[in-house]
Amino acid sequence: MKLNIAVLPGDGIGPEVTAQAKKVLKAIAMEFDHKFIFKEALAGAIAIDKSGNPLPDETLKLCKNTDAVLFGAIGDPKFDNDPSAKVRPEQGLLKLRKELGLFANIRPVKAYETLLSKSPLKKSIIEGTDISIYRELTGGIYFGEKRTSEDGNTSSDLCEYSRFEIERIAHLAFKAAQSRKGKVTLVDKANVLESSRLWRKVVTEIALEYPDVSLDFLFVDNAAMQMILNPKQFDVILTENMFGDIISDEASVIGGSIGLLASASVGDKYALFEPIHGSYPQATGKGIANPIASILSAAMLLEHFQLFEEANLIKQGVDKSLKLHITTPDLNSKYSHITTTKVGDFIEDFISNPK
Amino acid sequence: MKLNIAVLPGDGIGPEVTAQAKKVLKAIAMEFDHKFIFKEALAGAIAIDKSGNPLPDETLKLCKNTDAVLFGAIGDPKFDNDPSAKVRPEQGLLKLRKELGLFANIRPVKAYETLLSKSPLKKSIIEGTDISIYRELTGGIYFGEKRTSEDGNTSSDLCEYSRFEIERIAHLAFKAAQSRKGKVTLVDKANVLESSRLWRKVVTEIALEYPDVSLDFLFVDNAAMQMILNPKQFDVILTENMFGDIISDEASVIGGSIGLLASASVGDKYALFEPIHGSYPQATGKGIANPIASILSAAMLLEHFQLFEEANLIKQGVDKSLKLHITTPDLNSKYSHITTTKVGDFIEDFISNPK
Ligand SMILES: [Mg+2]
Ligand SMILES: [Mg+2]
Repeated sequence: MKLNIAVLPGDGIGPEVTAQAKKVLKAIAMEFDHKFIFKEALAGAIAIDKSGNPLPDETLKLCKNTDAVLFGAIGDPKFDNDPSAKVRPEQGLLKLRKELGLFANIRPVKAYETLLSKSPLKKSIIEGTDISIYRELTGGIYFGEKRTSEDGNTSSDLCEYSRFEIERIAHLAFKAAQSRKGKVTLVDKANVLESSRLWRKVVTEIALEYPDVSLDFLFVDNAAMQMILNPKQFDVILTENMFGDIISDEASVIGGSIGLLASASVGDKYALFEPIHGSYPQATGKGIANPIASILSAAMLLEHFQLFEEANLIKQGVDKSLKLHITTPDLNSKYSHITTTKVGDFIEDFISNPK
Repeated sequence: MKLNIAVLPGDGIGPEVTAQAKKVLKAIAMEFDHKFIFKEALAGAIAIDKSGNPLPDETLKLCKNTDAVLFGAIGDPKFDNDPSAKVRPEQGLLKLRKELGLFANIRPVKAYETLLSKSPLKKSIIEGTDISIYRELTGGIYFGEKRTSEDGNTSSDLCEYSRFEIERIAHLAFKAAQSRKGKVTLVDKANVLESSRLWRKVVTEIALEYPDVSLDFLFVDNAAMQMILNPKQFDVILTENMFGDIISDEASVIGGSIGLLASASVGDKYALFEPIHGSYPQATGKGIANPIASILSAAMLLEHFQLFEEANLIKQGVDKSLKLHITTPDLNSKYSHITTTKVGDFIEDFISNPK
């Protein structure tokens, strides 16, 4: 298969981990006789520094002319603590998602047997957890109209949803549930928010088309509790943008390491794959950033194009690296100096020479 | 001391647990020679059923003529799953908070030594947790303008904040931190939301008036993770209405039982005290509802009026009931038939006859 892949390493540890994912994809191409053509472009704080724009036009154009985007991470603390900054790195990713029509963010949350002891939650609570979170990604309050009064003393954000935005992700979630445990949980705040009531109405209607899938509802505050009390109750979680941001980040600690979690953002035409961790600026350049989430996002990319054998080989390489303690310090209790690059090298070697 | 106390038992298990709190307050009045005058009124689904209004005018008037409000719980599932319902029980509590100017909700979160094993989190994670969450209660998206388009296909909610709304609760939070561990953490989403950037700006300014208190910031999605990963890092958490709803409910599971958690909602003139649990309709009338949260909210009421000795006596009674397993089934591994009323009776007796 020939795939054009745009690589957007971004800020902080983004470039370091993305380099490992790219290396692993190249090894896959070699072994399976695919042709993956990588083109890099700027996004985030680094793009603001160089061009004043967190998503330069060339970057967007490149992404629209490729089959998939491999994304690193975005964000720099110098913007976070400066309320007066007009342009922010995160706007680059938000705009890219919007421009590519990536309306659904999919996050698998699994409790890995080898990492159960790393979780802050009790083993009995998390064992067997297997959730897929479908978060709406281009609507809601993150994209709604923002206002600040002239005197600077009043600010507002609008949370708005339209039926079609809810329908298209709801279909994805119900379809996913059909090949899983057959359960969708809609997380909303329908007892208070008008937009949540629209979600509940539309999703209830769509559920009728999937009689083999059960639908239940949870208010977001209750969902934040249930995720800790009993994560095993969930199969597919469907929710709006901001609730999905909060609930999926909360869920990310269940498995004991954020350094292993990948995600896909999909639309009708494009798809983007990225680790869920951020740019982690404190770790930049130290060789300690865990590349596995980025490598697993490359595996999700392959799955998106039905290259399941290839994706599985990557996952086996990851499993083996964990088993042999070829991991960065965040997960390593045995060796102290395994770097980001060494982990990538190990998985690259495994692909050429698995056993 | 003479106190006029409005009692709003509300829906579901509200009346059962509030009756125990009232009983305990009466015992306190007797022992300490106070005069507590209780007046009951309707609120919530029961008020809708009887008058069409979740907060009837008589109820509001009563609350405005009393020193404090003792509140039960509100909510009925028949409204939750009916997107077309025009009037909702929750509107009663939201309106009451607004009318009484209760702009700050204060929720203590503690890991009780006797209940450590009940938590879904590991003992090492939660031991020593002691957080006070200050949630803004009358602004933000829960109260912002709500709209649905004429065709019913688009709905929106507005999240709006003004400087004065942020300032008044920020002062309360910084003052609380001064008598605690001297740390305020502002939870917001300032990398995306305009209203969050106003919070960050105003709170940063106010922090200058409290040089003995340190201030740090967390994005709400990260806060949802940190609450599980390391709750001990927090002292006072300050946040806007919806983020506070989610984060404080998430935090409520740390201690191992929601049945012990009380809260205060305060303004410049009025104060309301309530358990954090909801109306729990499935348990209504079965005698299994845990009254301790409601009883501890009565203790918070006494503390609000500087009656610390009285409040401590209630807390001792609660501790003793826990130690002797005089608790409802949710916490009881020894006896199976201790009812809501029996727990209230035990604490009432303890007050008349402590040892
Ligand atoms: Mg997030
Ligand atoms: Mg809540």
